[in-house]
Amino acid sequence: MIGWSERDKEIGHMMSDAAVDVTGLSIGILGGTGDQGKGLALRFALAGHTVLIGSRSAARAQEAAEALGPGLPVRGAGNATVAAEADVVIVAVPWDGHRALLESLRAELDGKIVVDCVNPLGFDKQGAYALDVEEGSAAQQAAAVLTGSRVVAAFHHVSAVLLLDPGVREIDLDVLVLGDDREATDTVQELASRIPGARGVYGGRLRNAGQVEAFTANLISINRRYKAHAGLRVTDV
Amino acid sequence: MIGWSERDKEIGHMMSDAAVDVTGLSIGILGGTGDQGKGLALRFALAGHTVLIGSRSAARAQEAAEALGPGLPVRGAGNATVAAEADVVIVAVPWDGHRALLESLRAELDGKIVVDCVNPLGFDKQGAYALDVEEGSAAQQAAAVLTGSRVVAAFHHVSAVLLLDPGVREIDLDVLVLGDDREATDTVQELASRIPGARGVYGGRLRNAGQVEAFTANLISINRRYKAHAGLRVTDV
Repeated sequence: MIGWSERDKEIGHMMSDAAVDVTGLSIGILGGTGDQGKGLALRFALAGHTVLIGSRSAARAQEAAEALGPGLPVRGAGNATVAAEADVVIVAVPWDGHRALLESLRAELDGKIVVDCVNPLGFDKQGAYALDVEEGSAAQQAAAVLTGSRVVAAFHHVSAVLLLDPGVREIDLDVLVLGDDREATDTVQELASRIPGARGVYGGRLRNAGQVEAFTANLISINRRYKAHAGLRVTDV
Repeated sequence: MIGWSERDKEIGHMMSDAAVDVTGLSIGILGGTGDQGKGLALRFALAGHTVLIGSRSAARAQEAAEALGPGLPVRGAGNATVAAEADVVIVAVPWDGHRALLESLRAELDGKIVVDCVNPLGFDKQGAYALDVEEGSAAQQAAAVLTGSRVVAAFHHVSAVLLLDPGVREIDLDVLVLGDDREATDTVQELASRIPGARGVYGGRLRNAGQVEAFTANLISINRRYKAHAGLRVTDV
């Protein structure tokens, strides 16, 4: 389904202890009509995953899915349908509606790996800055709301512009993956590594997710200064 | 005041918008008897800078300077002497004594570039975590106390173990340099680049220093998971 031969799979497994087989996992993206959501949808679909783009409006979700191009395993649906049907669910909604959306989907997300990539940021004429979050981070807020889910934080820093650019074959960054559930973080690390060029790297427990979210403000400053689409690589790992 | 000739300035401007000639700058390190301070002292001395290690005890500072090895341009003195004499002053004290020390050195540090590399972290059996800081970050606390100084945040992530290991010829990381004073951040970027392998990269305004300090907790988790001395590189810059 993904285009790996069985032999490639075996080699993959021999190469790394931490490898989890994520082929066949379907990926839901709540708020998947935004640029970040669409970009991740595109890359996971290109890697062979069935992707479900979620939105408040099923029609807009379907439009976004079709806009990614013909022949890709992507379709759109309402957020609740996506939350119920997908194996792994990525939360890519604006910070403003974050808590309310998750509260409305507790039942659908129960027991699932939920990947929060939301960056609580404010903007003014000096650029971006980190907002104070009562729970410490968007990811910790998700964990506080979704007590039955396996919440992981990841994909904060990846540039939507690069994800959506078909001319960009490889995305040069490490995806920091944070969480308290080892199997869940291993799974999301493997998913991150399905994006060509990217690598999933464990980044700590959920209580240390706030600074990873907030660092997106720094990347915005770096992008402005250097006219870049900056990402991070972790050295010596 | 920094020892630039007009010609050097011109050459610097031709070479790069950001290039600043930092040769000849002496570096003071408050709290320089800790591993981080000693490691930075060693690398700046090896790069040819006169380094002044500061401590509450001038005798212990002198011991630390001598312990770095013979023939290096390093000496020890009390923190106040170091603050008064050095061209650029790095603050490498434990977070506990941060505010009190800076309050005691306001006059000595007036007008100078002060580089804060302090990480306000707590530790428990799950590892390291970021402490809440009233001012937002150690660097912002420094700026609030040292209203006459040019406060820059940098050197948070560099491993003291690697800095102090004479077998490590190159340190594989980017030093994120944050601040609101362009000439000051340019200067500190150049200083960071004097450490072989390292590169100074602008990382945003001082109000976004908190997440860079806090991210040191993530690096500690990464080091534990991967048995590494991890650092960050910024891609596409």
